[in-house]
Amino acid sequence: MEVALNLDPISPIALYRQIYDGLRDGIVGGRFEAGTKLPASRALATSLGVSRITVTECYERLISEGYLETRRGSGTFVCSSLPETDMYASSVPLAIDPEPESPMPVRLSIYGELINAPIRPPIPPELIRLDSHGPDVNSFPRKLWTRLLVRRMQEDPSPLLQYTQEFSGSTDLRIAVAHYLRMSRAVVCDPNQIIITSGSQQALYFAARIFLDPSDCVAMESPGYRFAGRIFSSQGATLLPIPVDSHGMQVSQLKKHSDKAVKLVYVTPSHQYPRGVALSVPRRMDLLAWAKQTGALILEDDYDSEYRYNERPLPSIQGMVPNAPVLYIGTFSKLLFPTLRLGYLVVPPAFQDVFTGAKLLCDLQSSSIDQRILTDFLTEGHLEPYVRKMRINYRNRRAVLVESLQRHFGRRVTIYGDHAGMHFLADFQIDLAEPEAFERALAAGVRLERVYWPACSEVERPGHVQFVFTFAARSEGELVLAAEKLARAFLS
Amino acid sequence: MEVALNLDPISPIALYRQIYDGLRDGIVGGRFEAGTKLPASRALATSLGVSRITVTECYERLISEGYLETRRGSGTFVCSSLPETDMYASSVPLAIDPEPESPMPVRLSIYGELINAPIRPPIPPELIRLDSHGPDVNSFPRKLWTRLLVRRMQEDPSPLLQYTQEFSGSTDLRIAVAHYLRMSRAVVCDPNQIIITSGSQQALYFAARIFLDPSDCVAMESPGYRFAGRIFSSQGATLLPIPVDSHGMQVSQLKKHSDKAVKLVYVTPSHQYPRGVALSVPRRMDLLAWAKQTGALILEDDYDSEYRYNERPLPSIQGMVPNAPVLYIGTFSKLLFPTLRLGYLVVPPAFQDVFTGAKLLCDLQSSSIDQRILTDFLTEGHLEPYVRKMRINYRNRRAVLVESLQRHFGRRVTIYGDHAGMHFLADFQIDLAEPEAFERALAAGVRLERVYWPACSEVERPGHVQFVFTFAARSEGELVLAAEKLARAFLS
Repeated sequence: MEVALNLDPISPIALYRQIYDGLRDGIVGGRFEAGTKLPASRALATSLGVSRITVTECYERLISEGYLETRRGSGTFVCSSLPETDMYASSVPLAIDPEPESPMPVRLSIYGELINAPIRPPIPPELIRLDSHGPDVNSFPRKLWTRLLVRRMQEDPSPLLQYTQEFSGSTDLRIAVAHYLRMSRAVVCDPNQIIITSGSQQALYFAARIFLDPSDCVAMESPGYRFAGRIFSSQGATLLPIPVDSHGMQVSQLKKHSDKAVKLVYVTPSHQYPRGVALSVPRRMDLLAWAKQTGALILEDDYDSEYRYNERPLPSIQGMVPNAPVLYIGTFSKLLFPTLRLGYLVVPPAFQDVFTGAKLLCDLQSSSIDQRILTDFLTEGHLEPYVRKMRINYRNRRAVLVESLQRHFGRRVTIYGDHAGMHFLADFQIDLAEPEAFERALAAGVRLERVYWPACSEVERPGHVQFVFTFAARSEGELVLAAEKLARAFLS
Repeated sequence: MEVALNLDPISPIALYRQIYDGLRDGIVGGRFEAGTKLPASRALATSLGVSRITVTECYERLISEGYLETRRGSGTFVCSSLPETDMYASSVPLAIDPEPESPMPVRLSIYGELINAPIRPPIPPELIRLDSHGPDVNSFPRKLWTRLLVRRMQEDPSPLLQYTQEFSGSTDLRIAVAHYLRMSRAVVCDPNQIIITSGSQQALYFAARIFLDPSDCVAMESPGYRFAGRIFSSQGATLLPIPVDSHGMQVSQLKKHSDKAVKLVYVTPSHQYPRGVALSVPRRMDLLAWAKQTGALILEDDYDSEYRYNERPLPSIQGMVPNAPVLYIGTFSKLLFPTLRLGYLVVPPAFQDVFTGAKLLCDLQSSSIDQRILTDFLTEGHLEPYVRKMRINYRNRRAVLVESLQRHFGRRVTIYGDHAGMHFLADFQIDLAEPEAFERALAAGVRLERVYWPACSEVERPGHVQFVFTFAARSEGELVLAAEKLARAFLS
């Protein structure tokens, strides 16, 4: 590794002394930590532009003083215990500006102020997490994925490793995604309408940035997907909660807001989060008619559409009428694995350039390697059998969790939501307030997902508490155990 | 693959007819393209929740009518030529809203308007590109990288594939980067101050979003890095160009703007883009003093710091004084390969949370797999020998290109910039205007990089034109050829 030292060739202080001081101060000051390997004297001399003998002499003096040690055959290292560290403390250069940790005077932007909040501490790993939206990554065909990658890495490196000009995503991947969506979701689109993003998160983020100013409103399901709400409100926009019942968002309630500039309406029509219901066809038509009339855009987050266990999937809103005012969002994070960071938007043709521009400015492009492997995975037909297999796994996990809860809670638990997806909503008839129930579950070792966003008083009934259960990433054994723990926490 | 069809179980139209119509309309309307494989009848029946016989009958009728065909042992496919397509055209459901491609009435946000511009058409591959900032990916140790990946993919999948809570980047990677920066760049930082981003592009983007409102100003080198300027101006901020001479940015010129709210000053101190010079130590100290006094932040883009061919690198501005008001930016895109999409910011402790929040909202996290492999690459000591090897390659390429230009142009060419990095600036004494010279080079098959941003009239002299030459990704043969072509283009 190179070592940068601040040498001044016209200083009255000899280069030897400057190098010696730089190394010693770096060791005493903690820049070069105990055990750090220093460069070979020849390499350091070359990179500093001095003779090798100068460096060798510095090293020898530092060795004799107990700062450095040589290990036979492996090089020169910073000693693990330093000689009388205190003695040298005063030789550390004094700060020009000595006040410690002076707060930065720099003002954040309006956006910076809106998002500046302490980051939640990590959740300890020993908890059984029923609040994690991850899929079952243990079942993911890692060997196959790795094989596809190894094969591609043996080819001409430029298409995989060099800058591309395909900022909205690889053409091959956009063709494969368009085909998949046309077939399985009745989405009507040309590959040019597809923008590949780093997960559906980034798709939501771009939609918010491109359409929302602080004077605008966003309508969204209540209860709904909290994180989408945070993205919209970080733009300064106002959230309008629209109630949800067993047919999905109550679209008729949108008309109450005709006095406001509703720019976007966010829906999860395939499997509403958190209620787990599908948006009915008549409401889809109403929503389209309302959007056409008011000039709003529908943000269709086609969350969980692939997993329905005993009903047929409804086709997308996007494909129901020509030129639908819809931004359609999907992701491979839940279908394959979350750290893949590949999702997509299908946008009306008028918005292709502005979304491509947003991607280009934000992070240039998504990984070409990941896009290539995903394309191979799709076009070689690996997705369908994998989803079929996982549909059975998830159906079984859902059944095990529902049965376990019913065994312990009997009529005191009600499960809401379709036989679908990777979560359901459960209502417990217990004499606990929601925060207390949550804390008790936590103390028992189970972390639940709360339904507290946005205002959702209509789901609160005295003597009832509700939580979302996400089960896809948990084994059947863990799910049985979680239900037991919850029974002890809520009923004792 | 699943096929979504809009079936209405309470419609007076029989399910058989609804399925038949849905498939036929999909074929005629182009949703199911010629050659598309349809699901097996059993699978489609299951997913639609109807009897298999219903689906079989639909398929048979469509086969007899010439829409579908069976291929022995492989399934049912859409025919490649359809029977008298016109005859059926009228049975395609009419649009509810038949005006074709009605422009979307939705207003973009202020940001959306600022970035909404047609995307530049791709550059044809037959050109010799001297405007590409890519490294030489052919020399990248792909086998080693793949081996590191294969090894990790055999381990417990959760840490690599499942959602993490490390939104600012993997702890292991942040430790490795902090160590690397302390050693090689004299950056003073704790791993908590590091935010892993999707390339330096995203680091710049976050800095702009977190600090810039439309009322703010950004000072930057002129001529400078155009793309950074686009990111700042997309926030609505005003750019203040600060001239550059052979010692880098003329820091004293910053004081002319004391009447403006200068929030950020963007510098490329290791190897100024495009002039190729280093910012001198006295100017670095002046810049720090100015920033402390005015409350501005220095955005230190430590571009090209690893490649110096006969001089020692200067330590970072960030590490020159304690608590320096510096956002330090680096990337592995140029050092390893561009599509890796991993870069980083080192931020003062007061800004850790807001940058982590920005990453979380924008795209949740960067790829865990890529972060893991990069960590292994760094901690197992593969970076240093690779950079040493590339330093020789790039030095040779630079020398070949300089020699070739001098051979053809003699005293009519002057090369500016240090012996460093992946680009230099060349001045040609020719009787052509800059746009004409650029076009002539293009016609001869060479794409040059222009120095046209921001206003840089001070580099324009009558009878002289200047271009940036990026050479790292080109072979020596291509560089020799490019110089020949340029000579023909400029001198004939």
